[in-house]
Amino acid sequence: MSAHDTKRVLVLLSGGIDSVTAFHDALQDSEVAAALSFDYGSKHNAREIPFAQSHCREAGIEHRVVRLGFIEKHFRSSLLKSGPDIPEDPYDEESMRSTVVPFRNGIMLSIATGLAASRDATAVVIGAHGGDHSIYPDCRPDFMQAMAAAMRAGTYAGIDLLRPFISRSKAQVVARAAELGVDLSRTWSCYKGGELHCGVCGTCRERRAAFRAAGVPRPTEYA
Amino acid sequence: MSAHDTKRVLVLLSGGIDSVTAFHDALQDSEVAAALSFDYGSKHNAREIPFAQSHCREAGIEHRVVRLGFIEKHFRSSLLKSGPDIPEDPYDEESMRSTVVPFRNGIMLSIATGLAASRDATAVVIGAHGGDHSIYPDCRPDFMQAMAAAMRAGTYAGIDLLRPFISRSKAQVVARAAELGVDLSRTWSCYKGGELHCGVCGTCRERRAAFRAAGVPRPTEYA
Repeated sequence: MSAHDTKRVLVLLSGGIDSVTAFHDALQDSEVAAALSFDYGSKHNAREIPFAQSHCREAGIEHRVVRLGFIEKHFRSSLLKSGPDIPEDPYDEESMRSTVVPFRNGIMLSIATGLAASRDATAVVIGAHGGDHSIYPDCRPDFMQAMAAAMRAGTYAGIDLLRPFISRSKAQVVARAAELGVDLSRTWSCYKGGELHCGVCGTCRERRAAFRAAGVPRPTEYA
Repeated sequence: MSAHDTKRVLVLLSGGIDSVTAFHDALQDSEVAAALSFDYGSKHNAREIPFAQSHCREAGIEHRVVRLGFIEKHFRSSLLKSGPDIPEDPYDEESMRSTVVPFRNGIMLSIATGLAASRDATAVVIGAHGGDHSIYPDCRPDFMQAMAAAMRAGTYAGIDLLRPFISRSKAQVVARAAELGVDLSRTWSCYKGGELHCGVCGTCRERRAAFRAAGVPRPTEYA
């Protein structure tokens, strides 16, 4: 690919399967200006951010961690250290609604947009996939489309929102990672953020199901 | 007005003329859940935030200051303490472009939306007016409309973006403040953030012009 075809992007990199795979996917055909993680006081930030860091270090890409202390302090969610326990039932509206951090994707995408503009990047990559849950209002297509329009209109460069996996399932993201040779043992999913993945919370169940459906040996030890 | 008609809102309150007037305007017919200021490392944050605080204290409304250290650290703008000097010429594209903080309104509105959802508010009020500059991409109507759609779609409550002054000029905002008896001597405009308003930067020129056009005696001492 010639230099003038190469997009300069900033990647949202939590350290989970989707964003780590999106990061390696972007490295294939884009210039990655930087990757961005957020420490917003969730129970699992301390588990996932070191994995994000490790992938950036290996790839020689600048990694920024932005601390959002106001979320832990002022927002309500079971995902936060300041909130109640993570539910153990399967993902369903009833049980997982408590894990919503209000407008989290809006906040992360806005900050990423400002940082991208400051680094002369013209797009922000998010690892959102087709199986993301509609119980999270800020994962729904109408949010993403409106946010993309706001990002484009609100910046000189007309920054684009790229969602490379939006037409794939999580299992297909795992398959893509395998294709790229991404080490998914260095990713974190469990919302509880213990020593090991708990294996019973909604995200752990999804992680296991995605490896199973993709036919990829699962690299994760569960508690 | 009966209780079920009263909107519960969160107000963006920088401590400038527009937001302070929007705050007092909102107090007329809404329940103000809280007011929100941002300390993002601008040269004038230290001047404007105490005024925001003073209006909240007087009105008995909770005031939150969210510190956004990453903006000062990683963003490029002459508005920031970390940036070059503020230009002294009148507002025009050439000279004021350096004062843009990339996607600042997107970041502030996103955080306000998350906080509003956490406080059971159903709208966010911004003091944007019709004279806001089109050199700031995140002040333009197409940004504001897309962002409003993102806020509505991305929250359970369908949080609204309210722009009470969007059809008024800055002079009309000053007139509204006079009508409400708002003490505009307790507002700050100057981007330089010195002891007194400098009187020569773009925002100081606009402040003076707005009082003059409104026929309201200007309460501000200039350097």
